Amino acid sequence: MEHLTGACIIGQSGGPTAVINASAQGVIQTALASGQITRVLGAAHGIKGVLADQLYDMAQEDPAELDLLQYTPSSALGSCRYKLADPDVDDTDYRRILEIFQKYDVRYFFYNGGNDSMDTCNKISKYMQKVGYPCNIIGVPKTIDNDLSGTDHCPGYASAAKYIATSCMELYQDARVYDTGTVVIVEIMGRHAGWLAGAAGLASWAGSGPDLVYLPEVDFHMDQFLADVKRVYEETGNCLVAVSEGIHYADGTFVSEAKTSATDGFGHAQLGGLAAMLADTVKNAMGVKVRGIELSLLQRCGSHLASRTDLDEAYLAGKAAVEAAVSGVTDKMVALDCTRDDTGYHCQTKLVPLTEAANTERKVPLSWITPEGNGVTEDFVRYALPLIQGEPQRPLENALPRFAKLKKVLTTSMD
Amino acid sequence: MEHLTGACIIGQSGGPTAVINASAQGVIQTALASGQITRVLGAAHGIKGVLADQLYDMAQEDPAELDLLQYTPSSALGSCRYKLADPDVDDTDYRRILEIFQKYDVRYFFYNGGNDSMDTCNKISKYMQKVGYPCNIIGVPKTIDNDLSGTDHCPGYASAAKYIATSCMELYQDARVYDTGTVVIVEIMGRHAGWLAGAAGLASWAGSGPDLVYLPEVDFHMDQFLADVKRVYEETGNCLVAVSEGIHYADGTFVSEAKTSATDGFGHAQLGGLAAMLADTVKNAMGVKVRGIELSLLQRCGSHLASRTDLDEAYLAGKAAVEAAVSGVTDKMVALDCTRDDTGYHCQTKLVPLTEAANTERKVPLSWITPEGNGVTEDFVRYALPLIQGEPQRPLENALPRFAKLKKVLTTSMD
Repeated sequence: MEHLTGACIIGQSGGPTAVINASAQGVIQTALASGQITRVLGAAHGIKGVLADQLYDMAQEDPAELDLLQYTPSSALGSCRYKLADPDVDDTDYRRILEIFQKYDVRYFFYNGGNDSMDTCNKISKYMQKVGYPCNIIGVPKTIDNDLSGTDHCPGYASAAKYIATSCMELYQDARVYDTGTVVIVEIMGRHAGWLAGAAGLASWAGSGPDLVYLPEVDFHMDQFLADVKRVYEETGNCLVAVSEGIHYADGTFVSEAKTSATDGFGHAQLGGLAAMLADTVKNAMGVKVRGIELSLLQRCGSHLASRTDLDEAYLAGKAAVEAAVSGVTDKMVALDCTRDDTGYHCQTKLVPLTEAANTERKVPLSWITPEGNGVTEDFVRYALPLIQGEPQRPLENALPRFAKLKKVLTTSMD
Repeated sequence: MEHLTGACIIGQSGGPTAVINASAQGVIQTALASGQITRVLGAAHGIKGVLADQLYDMAQEDPAELDLLQYTPSSALGSCRYKLADPDVDDTDYRRILEIFQKYDVRYFFYNGGNDSMDTCNKISKYMQKVGYPCNIIGVPKTIDNDLSGTDHCPGYASAAKYIATSCMELYQDARVYDTGTVVIVEIMGRHAGWLAGAAGLASWAGSGPDLVYLPEVDFHMDQFLADVKRVYEETGNCLVAVSEGIHYADGTFVSEAKTSATDGFGHAQLGGLAAMLADTVKNAMGVKVRGIELSLLQRCGSHLASRTDLDEAYLAGKAAVEAAVSGVTDKMVALDCTRDDTGYHCQTKLVPLTEAANTERKVPLSWITPEGNGVTEDFVRYALPLIQGEPQRPLENALPRFAKLKKVLTTSMD
């Protein structure tokens, strides 16, 4: 355990969320208040900003604007999708990172992101240890996908879940307004884990949600899907369906794959267009009115529907990262340790090894998915419902959101 | 002016909105309290419910649930898209409506909808006058499209506008998070009028909105559009675009037309898929990362972002309809009469002839669109901004919306 004195860098990585800036706020405000941290630097676009020597001096920001970060969706410092090479193969980036760390006397590095970001964090940590550069490195979890291991859930998930559940409840009301019958198919994010699609099941639980919910944890069968939709439509005159973008056939092929071409920076397939494709399929099979709706980016930036619980936990995760680092901890990710029992929901932070969190995907337990594979169980609701509680008192100007305005003053020297 | 005593029917028609149930609540609660109205009947799916003798006895509803109507999106009684024939050509429907009116001693008919619904209202009113059946008929305006004539604006518009502006502000934050550059194209409803797409300009005015906004009031030129996007992308590294689904070329062809096949019950082309089509076009022309997002049904049922002003005016319109009818007025639509000056925004109801409102479309004044045809002016903001003010204290259960639960007790006789 090394008690270091020096600058810190906070970086944001991967897809943005409604609350990732709450974690940044937690890191920045705790770091600014720490006697051991001499300078708080924000990396422009995550690790790419470190490599490019583009670092913002966070002490120059108006404290009132920093307070607004938690109500500001997306990554205020800028994000990136950048995968570091294996240092044994190519250590160019690592040498550059060390150079920047030395230039600014960086002794603390906080990286806020998902699986890939924890991998980045882990690699940098290992490299610094190898070259003997003392630096405490802590990962702060973030992902709407909720698929990081070692934590009860991930900051960002709950606000997206709340957006999805609320939107599905409203769509349910809208979609059954005519007596002529409609099938509405809602496409929800989640490449390999069904946590987000499962959140649509919260709307069903509340009595105004999808009749059918399909998660990527179980194989998708088009014939069974069409039979399910037909049955519900015939019984009720309408059908609202929620599907994860990641649903796939038994052979692993994404259902959306025919529409897929580009890939993101990490080599993942870019999914999308699934709702439209399934809508076409249902229309052809049943000849009824069908509409496909993709929640798209809206579900990850919908800060107006953020969960107060999520915002508080995101802030807490950032704060805990700094507290752990200044107390000498390194090479860990902050995780959320939660209990749900008769006394309610309780959450505190803990620390888990970065290696545990990096590059593994936590999925929805199969026992939380209905035997028919078209819905979630009460266990899922018991898990997710506490996370979406609480309404933020978000600041408004003219009834529109008032987001944080950062000056983003680039620093070029040690002064 | 005839002071009638008898039952009333309230029907909802056309596309639902976030606040159409607030108007229903205004009609129902005012009618239930009126000494002249002996019975309050809700038509299942608008005029189709009248034709089918499917009428709900609203007195049997729990008053507390009726209070929740204003927080419940979509048409709680059910809606329809049903165009009555010209009574001189085919009076079958009108004779049936008269039969039902006589069966229940209906002396008041309130119809809540847009242009087509006002036309329905007008035709029924003319028929009842022709056959000498005393019945006071008042239209209650409703349309997110905001294209009804004779009124400053239409209930439903402002809440959709607020949803669009807020969502665009969040998307703006999200869409510029990477340093690699993205073009995001948001498709907004509005078949022939650009009021909704213009609302995206409120986000721009607030400093976090589309760089470019295209309305159907001006001809769309693909070359100019691509040049606009290219210029903004080169200047800022990103580009957020808002387009109305109704944008069209100089010859009147909808830009989306290639993707269009089905039509709705009124013979309108069903638009959609425009965002994806424009995204493809930009991708092919510029080779950059592009994402198309369709706000789809979300924008018309987003009651969680409803405007308190809109909710109050929607209720007021329903209430005013009943008050006018019981005082002997018929053949009118309730309209909103508003002033915007140094003393603020003021709104009261007035009555306009149904003939004035029916089947004419009010468009955004060309002087409120920028000379380049890719944005809205301060005049538009001055018009729309007051309408979106105020946050409803919407009731929640487990942090999810608590919508009205109606019993919908069908009535079959006069008792």
